[in-house]
Amino acid sequence: MSDSGSSSGSGGRSEREAIADLMADYVHFIDDDRLEDWVELFVEDCSYRILSRENVDAGYPLELMSCDSKDMLRDRILSLREAVLYNVHTDKHVLGAVRVSGPEDEDEDGVRAWSVQANYSLYQTTANGETRLFSVGTYRDRVVFSGGRALFAEKTVVADTFTVDRLLSTPI
Amino acid sequence: MSDSGSSSGSGGRSEREAIADLMADYVHFIDDDRLEDWVELFVEDCSYRILSRENVDAGYPLELMSCDSKDMLRDRILSLREAVLYNVHTDKHVLGAVRVSGPEDEDEDGVRAWSVQANYSLYQTTANGETRLFSVGTYRDRVVFSGGRALFAEKTVVADTFTVDRLLSTPI
Amino acid sequence: MSDSGSSSGSGGRSEREAIADLMADYVHFIDDDRLEDWVELFVEDCSYRILSRENVDAGYPLELMSCDSKDMLRDRILSLREAVLYNVHTDKHVLGAVRVSGPEDEDEDGVRAWSVQANYSLYQTTANGETRLFSVGTYRDRVVFSGGRALFAEKTVVADTFTVDRLLSTPI
Repeated sequence: MSDSGSSSGSGGRSEREAIADLMADYVHFIDDDRLEDWVELFVEDCSYRILSRENVDAGYPLELMSCDSKDMLRDRILSLREAVLYNVHTDKHVLGAVRVSGPEDEDEDGVRAWSVQANYSLYQTTANGETRLFSVGTYRDRVVFSGGRALFAEKTVVADTFTVDRLLSTPI
Repeated sequence: MSDSGSSSGSGGRSEREAIADLMADYVHFIDDDRLEDWVELFVEDCSYRILSRENVDAGYPLELMSCDSKDMLRDRILSLREAVLYNVHTDKHVLGAVRVSGPEDEDEDGVRAWSVQANYSLYQTTANGETRLFSVGTYRDRVVFSGGRALFAEKTVVADTFTVDRLLSTPI
Repeated sequence: MSDSGSSSGSGGRSEREAIADLMADYVHFIDDDRLEDWVELFVEDCSYRILSRENVDAGYPLELMSCDSKDMLRDRILSLREAVLYNVHTDKHVLGAVRVSGPEDEDEDGVRAWSVQANYSLYQTTANGETRLFSVGTYRDRVVFSGGRALFAEKTVVADTFTVDRLLSTPI
């Protein structure tokens, strides 16, 4: 019943399909607590940020979480693994329709990026099976292809919901 | 980070992909308050209706909102722009799987329509970041192609949730 | 406005598209109370189970509902049709991104199966239009092709939400 592989690495699909699969892997890896696989969906020189929409709209993008490289993401995961509080809740993402536009023209390094946007709703369930809505928001991402794989160059979570009770910053 | 373009107009994709993109643009344009772009997703001679499921099932399709042309939609948007109450909440749609069937045979004008169905959940977030479920329901649409673009000929929102506190009819 | 057909049987699409359509048909047929059509999405020798995630994680997969053949599913539907309590609520599924991997190698019968995973949120609405979240969880399925159609060989619903007030086991 479990799925041990990633669907975003297999061949024979269009770039759009590969991007849709990357977006799906992203949320399922978090939900299934496969954070070590999750970090492999990013390029080394990546950006990962969680912002609140209210701050984005006001022009003050206060960051709830910010990592400027894959190494920082790895450190963050190590911290989460050591923290007692993590895994108290079960996450469940429902990912809405994925909008893809691109690719853009090549940058100075010959890389072509795609812009990707998708809404999500994220639910958390306690150990006794009670579920509540935790966050809704939008992913606003840039995806590149490296070695035939779709990977996140930039992942930006713009959360509509501004929750004050987050004890520890976990990925959304 | 923002996305200024529409993904539904680009070429090189199948008709099914173009329809899926149209459905995605529809919800993102509402959520991003791009209502002037949103109205361009409809043909001139379009129909836009919001119904409650309870009335549909009972055979009395009381319409919560009804526009019989693109001009009426434009007027509605102008009214919303002038209304103080609009934009008090932030909308966020999560669009479920899109079912596409068709195309039908050509009509008398040589147009072939596709039937499209998709569920949605719509959340609203207040200025202080509190999110609540506003509506769930189903889009039951007819899509045509004009000048290579997928556009709504009929957009019908059948809302399961019957909310009494809507001060102003806004798109769902 | 209604859709009388199934989108999962039409030709000219890739296997991945057919699988995505099957997943979409599954939820829409439940929501639209088309349970007799719904059962036709399964092979005769199918497995259908609803589990709670808490039990899966603990290694005790207590089954909230379990059918080991299409005939058992048919019986279940007959029971639901005879039950007074059914249809008190309206279901609405929002299906998240569908992850497809496969196909696997042929089994001894020459059948090749695909692994499919997708999250869902399921809402229920009462007769007076009030909507509440009923369940979130993950489908972990195996799909095969028979006569050119995608069908469920195994459908396993792993529900995060553990609701105690289910009077009658209905499909999720």
